[in-house]
Amino acid sequence: MERNLYLNNTVLEDAQEQYLRRLRDLLSPRVETVALENAQGRVTAEAVYARYNSPSYNSAAMDGVAVVAAHTSAARETAPVVLEEGKDYAVVDTGDPVLPPYDAVVMAEDLAEVDETHVEITASVPAWQHVRAVGEDVVAGELILPTRHRLRAVDLGVLRAAGVDAVRVLAKPRVAVIPTGTELISAGSAPETGEIIDSNSLMFSAMAEDAGAEAVRCAPVKDDYAAIRSAVSRAVDESDMVLVNAGSSAGTEDYTVHVLRELGEVVVHGVAVKPGKPVILAVVRGKPVVGLPGYPVAAYLSFLNFAQPVLTLLGGHERAAMGEVRAVLSRRLLSSVKYTEYVRVKLGCVADKWVASPLDRGSGAAMSLVRADGFCRIPQNCEGLESGEEISVQLCRPLSELENTLVLIGSHDVLLDVMEDMMSARGAGLRLSSTHVGSLGGLMALRRGECHMAPTHLLDEDGTYNVHTIRDLFPDEPMLLVKGVGRLQGLMVKKGNPLNIRGVEDLPRCRYVNRQRGAGTRILLDSLLASAGVAPETINGYDREAATHMAVAALVASDSADVGMGAWSAANAMGLDFVPVGWEEYDFALPAAYRDLPQVRQFLDLLRSDAFHARLAALGGYQCPRSGEIVEI
Amino acid sequence: MERNLYLNNTVLEDAQEQYLRRLRDLLSPRVETVALENAQGRVTAEAVYARYNSPSYNSAAMDGVAVVAAHTSAARETAPVVLEEGKDYAVVDTGDPVLPPYDAVVMAEDLAEVDETHVEITASVPAWQHVRAVGEDVVAGELILPTRHRLRAVDLGVLRAAGVDAVRVLAKPRVAVIPTGTELISAGSAPETGEIIDSNSLMFSAMAEDAGAEAVRCAPVKDDYAAIRSAVSRAVDESDMVLVNAGSSAGTEDYTVHVLRELGEVVVHGVAVKPGKPVILAVVRGKPVVGLPGYPVAAYLSFLNFAQPVLTLLGGHERAAMGEVRAVLSRRLLSSVKYTEYVRVKLGCVADKWVASPLDRGSGAAMSLVRADGFCRIPQNCEGLESGEEISVQLCRPLSELENTLVLIGSHDVLLDVMEDMMSARGAGLRLSSTHVGSLGGLMALRRGECHMAPTHLLDEDGTYNVHTIRDLFPDEPMLLVKGVGRLQGLMVKKGNPLNIRGVEDLPRCRYVNRQRGAGTRILLDSLLASAGVAPETINGYDREAATHMAVAALVASDSADVGMGAWSAANAMGLDFVPVGWEEYDFALPAAYRDLPQVRQFLDLLRSDAFHARLAALGGYQCPRSGEIVEI
Repeated sequence: MERNLYLNNTVLEDAQEQYLRRLRDLLSPRVETVALENAQGRVTAEAVYARYNSPSYNSAAMDGVAVVAAHTSAARETAPVVLEEGKDYAVVDTGDPVLPPYDAVVMAEDLAEVDETHVEITASVPAWQHVRAVGEDVVAGELILPTRHRLRAVDLGVLRAAGVDAVRVLAKPRVAVIPTGTELISAGSAPETGEIIDSNSLMFSAMAEDAGAEAVRCAPVKDDYAAIRSAVSRAVDESDMVLVNAGSSAGTEDYTVHVLRELGEVVVHGVAVKPGKPVILAVVRGKPVVGLPGYPVAAYLSFLNFAQPVLTLLGGHERAAMGEVRAVLSRRLLSSVKYTEYVRVKLGCVADKWVASPLDRGSGAAMSLVRADGFCRIPQNCEGLESGEEISVQLCRPLSELENTLVLIGSHDVLLDVMEDMMSARGAGLRLSSTHVGSLGGLMALRRGECHMAPTHLLDEDGTYNVHTIRDLFPDEPMLLVKGVGRLQGLMVKKGNPLNIRGVEDLPRCRYVNRQRGAGTRILLDSLLASAGVAPETINGYDREAATHMAVAALVASDSADVGMGAWSAANAMGLDFVPVGWEEYDFALPAAYRDLPQVRQFLDLLRSDAFHARLAALGGYQCPRSGEIVEI
Repeated sequence: MERNLYLNNTVLEDAQEQYLRRLRDLLSPRVETVALENAQGRVTAEAVYARYNSPSYNSAAMDGVAVVAAHTSAARETAPVVLEEGKDYAVVDTGDPVLPPYDAVVMAEDLAEVDETHVEITASVPAWQHVRAVGEDVVAGELILPTRHRLRAVDLGVLRAAGVDAVRVLAKPRVAVIPTGTELISAGSAPETGEIIDSNSLMFSAMAEDAGAEAVRCAPVKDDYAAIRSAVSRAVDESDMVLVNAGSSAGTEDYTVHVLRELGEVVVHGVAVKPGKPVILAVVRGKPVVGLPGYPVAAYLSFLNFAQPVLTLLGGHERAAMGEVRAVLSRRLLSSVKYTEYVRVKLGCVADKWVASPLDRGSGAAMSLVRADGFCRIPQNCEGLESGEEISVQLCRPLSELENTLVLIGSHDVLLDVMEDMMSARGAGLRLSSTHVGSLGGLMALRRGECHMAPTHLLDEDGTYNVHTIRDLFPDEPMLLVKGVGRLQGLMVKKGNPLNIRGVEDLPRCRYVNRQRGAGTRILLDSLLASAGVAPETINGYDREAATHMAVAALVASDSADVGMGAWSAANAMGLDFVPVGWEEYDFALPAAYRDLPQVRQFLDLLRSDAFHARLAALGGYQCPRSGEIVEI
């Protein structure tokens, strides 16, 4: 149980600055020459100058005839001048040379043809009219691009036209990625208990490539001092930069920092940032070596904060950030004054207002990284952000995509995944984003203006669904109920139902896993328990919460629980047996004001479509007699 | 002189919609499977679901010991419970399995070690505390990504963790690029008169690759009906899409449209857009074939308007636009109601206000495409935009880059290129952008708040430079004069000075090329002519204008003129002889309010640096005794 004693808590900005200052003196980027054909996205290592003029000769800017301007000086409307081909004019198309004695062009529209070799003009022409002069676009010797310019398609076109065939660019930094951890296995086989598929090294490689580098992924190295030392030492020799990724155990990180202390110099170990504290910023034989934490979210943020700036130093690639947006925070976020904290958020553009809803803050939740629309950053020495406060969100998706997204917050069902997929597949640029906080939580979010619709299945005391609760929560606002599906709920049990569970009265003798407070499924359970006269306290696991039907099913399937309540589709997907407790109505609350938004209309279209009903039929456990019907309530 | 009679003037949006509607029914994207390692940036062809749970077992979320929660229920601050290793607890690091009978984790910090095999705890532990449950992050069978999602580094990490090793993605569309035009030559040799280096095909290939396609460039095809027909026909067979690029002659476009009519169907020919009217949207054997105009700016815009949406249809890549910014237009822009017009603009962020200054509107000015910061779009049926109007600008550069750019408008000198290069080369994210409108024009722009500084060399009647004019133009604002360089001006003549030009009194017997009105060099000429008693009307070419010293030098070097006035450095760069007329003072007008901006400070640093002086010495014709000195005026 020995832990690393050397972890500091350096302020984020100080850590970045200390490390970069140390590296700036040390690193000199490699330079190479590449042909223009391979130069897109590369960064110039020196200024690029034009070799030739463009155009390289005086050329006609219009279709017409090239003339000697002096020969036209007498032409008037009342006294036309006739010009003779070969002597006074030559026919030219746009781009043709205008050679001596010719020094101007008359447009075809301004000529009258007299015969095959004579034309008549009625106005004099100034010299150099409609002539693109030599070098009018680019002059030989002129600066086309400065040093440290990232080459775009238009740049390549102009360089080509100016006679530049190859450019000196910064070489792509070679980055070695070393995953460490005895528990890590390479991709290709199912992980046994205690094994974890190495996934960070792929993410880091892709991030490094995004940052203009070439990445080399090493096979996972066991938690062994000598093995790690040897892998790091070899990688330093072969690369411009090395990333060492701790496994998920603290012991592994211990090895890394000791290895780096032995091989070189540790500039910073431990940064006051969450997630991502246990980062190591080191220099070995003049090369940057960065130790990154193992949890995916911490790993991702640490890469952006520490590895990315080093790659910019080495390869000149500025990070193409997605930009920022100002948004209203949907709920209070407390944060420790000891750390800079990054919180993932979902963004919704609802009624022309951007709302940021915080996601799971655990550093292990990689899926929340996929689902995140952006990050908000809570500075060190700040105790947190208030609900309703306007904050800055760093985007993870293009703003244009988010603007056209239908935002759903509420109860979870697999059909939301199906709808998300079908909206996106249409390719019309409209998308669906759903966050799962339970039926009641969703209606509260809808009331606060954080989403467009709230999926809900709330059983009222009179046995009807949804209508009463929505009416109570939105007394003054015209609301619609979009009918969704009939959904079969029940107890999900292991294959063959070994504990012979028949209903909620059997739960006190099982290990149960519940849904979070406010979830419709939990409210249904409470109602069934009350009817059956079973006290919640008697159920082992009543307080154990999972966030979705699928998560409950997974816990039962892996024998981490005996039983949980959920939809038939989830039990079916996970290969579980199912004890039905009844059909319920899973619908969508929709403020009437949003009814005609394009994303709402597409959602309604899909809800009514045969394709959607076919996909639900394949999942099983659904009825769709009224899907997409709109009820004014 | 036969011209194409079939060119229509279809409204831009109608042309796009007609073509895409025609293609939507026709095209079905190809699909392929790629390994995760090669999937970054690709677009999913179907939804991707998790194969395994992540984590795949209940695992410790903290370093500490795994315990049986039930064994801890009696623990109190006043009544600690002692646990025995192997019976009550097992040591775990973060990520280690928590296996039955254990069902919770106690953090190392909350334990007291009794001896090597016993620990003491002082609080009871709820079941599943600090345990990451099976599937907590990703549940097997869960939707990870929808159809038509562009894969990012974080997506690849989660897919890997969830056991997905390969994904079905849309195949990269194969795009053939056919340059046509007898005047076109491939890169590698200097163009003779009448020859143009084919540069558009490289730009199109790079743009297609940016849009997620694979581009195949063909060698230039001569203006010959059969040759073009055969090239298009073969390309249609081998590709998903074909781009035919007319040369700069109208005759070529004739061939293209006739060939496309013979081989297939021309949906649109001629669009009401400037630049870029002569576009052809066709379908040949079920494949999209787009004829793009030859002038670079028209070519670029036509690609974005017509080829890009087809590539999105084929390959799923949405264009990653740089976004838009609202800016104040610096001067009136008239536009025909017959066309949608795109105008290139430079952007300046001056005193927290974005200002858009229109660039050259010629469609041949490729360099203005490189220099552009964005486009403003003047709709059809709009007569133009007023000076001072707030407009929307589509960005060509990241906003973050533009925010940190020092904006100079005024007189041109090669040293501005040197400074631009040196600012950018520092890699500190500060840049310099300069626009050349002459000294007076620059001071007017400075007064309108369009730039930070104005480079100027204006000779006053008392023989001093710059001070009086600035004082007159800025009567109420505290202004600084940043001393620049002493610059040798003179008459640039051909090598060996064949016309034996000695001074301005010789100009009436030569072909002259002048600078634009308001340029300091033109004002210097006028002053010299007045002193010498030479009337401007007697000079052939006094009204012929070029925008920079280098452009004047290029016209002399190519024998398009005999003489022009300019700086020694320009004559030297172009291999011309030089008849000096005197030293002048090239300085920078700077409002005192901008003095402490980071980009101004870096500019001043560089102006005073030895490195800058060394580069000027290499150019020749400069003196720097006071460079960077600040004079309050």
